[in-house]
Amino acid sequence: MNEADIALAHRLADAAGAAIRPYFRARFDIETKADASPVTQADRAAEAAIRAILEAERPEDGIIGEEYGNAREGADRLWVLDPIDGTRSFIAGRPIFGTLIALIEGGAPVLGVIDQPIIGERWIGAAGRPTLLNGAPARARACPALDRAHLATTGPRLFTEAEKAAFDRLSDAARDTLWGGDCYNYALLASGHLDLVVEGGLKLYDLAALVPVVEGAGGAMRDWAGRPLTRDSSGQVIATGDPRLLDAALEKLN
Amino acid sequence: MNEADIALAHRLADAAGAAIRPYFRARFDIETKADASPVTQADRAAEAAIRAILEAERPEDGIIGEEYGNAREGADRLWVLDPIDGTRSFIAGRPIFGTLIALIEGGAPVLGVIDQPIIGERWIGAAGRPTLLNGAPARARACPALDRAHLATTGPRLFTEAEKAAFDRLSDAARDTLWGGDCYNYALLASGHLDLVVEGGLKLYDLAALVPVVEGAGGAMRDWAGRPLTRDSSGQVIATGDPRLLDAALEKLN
Repeated sequence: MNEADIALAHRLADAAGAAIRPYFRARFDIETKADASPVTQADRAAEAAIRAILEAERPEDGIIGEEYGNAREGADRLWVLDPIDGTRSFIAGRPIFGTLIALIEGGAPVLGVIDQPIIGERWIGAAGRPTLLNGAPARARACPALDRAHLATTGPRLFTEAEKAAFDRLSDAARDTLWGGDCYNYALLASGHLDLVVEGGLKLYDLAALVPVVEGAGGAMRDWAGRPLTRDSSGQVIATGDPRLLDAALEKLN
Repeated sequence: MNEADIALAHRLADAAGAAIRPYFRARFDIETKADASPVTQADRAAEAAIRAILEAERPEDGIIGEEYGNAREGADRLWVLDPIDGTRSFIAGRPIFGTLIALIEGGAPVLGVIDQPIIGERWIGAAGRPTLLNGAPARARACPALDRAHLATTGPRLFTEAEKAAFDRLSDAARDTLWGGDCYNYALLASGHLDLVVEGGLKLYDLAALVPVVEGAGGAMRDWAGRPLTRDSSGQVIATGDPRLLDAALEKLN
């Protein structure tokens, strides 16, 4: 991962945003996928726009995309794409969905973008560098105690029953719980406005971009067993703005 | 309710927005109220700004406010204020909270504002007039069948257990369910991006402003018994963009 990759990630996010904006709060078709999640023309147009650039400029890199599947997935360098994370939020006209673009090298996410193309907010994280929001450093905040923590998750039905029981234990111990939000919760955590985000059932394309954004802001991002997130992670994710929160939060979840 | 009241409502929302914006994503104190909900300096500054104008310009009207209580509550004309509806969302830095300003006459809401001061979106509804979003007409959309409906609610823990079971029946019958959102869900319904919003436990200041906005956009807003919402309503609220959805949705709730 180098400067050229970072510059390319910005151009990919620009292209996705240009594809998405005409559909926001306009008419579009909504289909339901095999996993019961919705998909729109905007999701597909945005991923197609990103892939066209990647195929032209990085023909040897692999691609894992939510809408158009995998290409060269055995490559060491993999671009991982969720053109609209929070499609339900997009459909409802909420300007807090995000385009997720990640670069994985050697199985680990090293570059991540969370782009909100309606408000015009872009968080970018790259291994070894501070996370930036629209070019300015973003920092997670200190919060050493669980009973002071503001927790967020997207929805109760995205958990299995056992996961939901675990989440409820954590929610009872936290100061407050906020619902909805998708990737935008992780971005707000990276900017110091939330302390904990916990989810289950995430796919690689839902989580890969989040890791460099959260870690580059000083936060921690793990699976529910406390392990770093990799290409092979289970989809149970915890992000803490203050890494000192991690052990106490994991204890409630397990 | 007349043109002067509508003009005043705009000025009240302007004053609240000016009071709120400096606090958004900045440092502020958070306190926890008796009902376990949070309140910030921004909530108080916004309500104080609104009340100062009302006391000067409408000294005979009553005021019911979330943060500073009631004044002249026996008056026939009552201004009902929630300076920040969605305080948890505001605290987390999400730009989808709203300032709610309503005028009640004879017990019924006749004027309502939902103002989002960060993005700069203002929905205003006045009895007998079309709802406006930033000056342009807002219309709810057609959706005659429950299995096509996009449903939203703020959070599972804002329901009692019995209400949650009722909501789950409705959610199972709807096409999709979106979480979080507070007053912004009703605004999006009024603009034709959501079909159903259902909540329990709302206070008068949470719901009064929503009614003219939803109804002026062609939607329906009732309590869970199907009755119009008044000053004495229970706090169980259903909004449908298409009034034909109301009976089917109420059947699932009851």
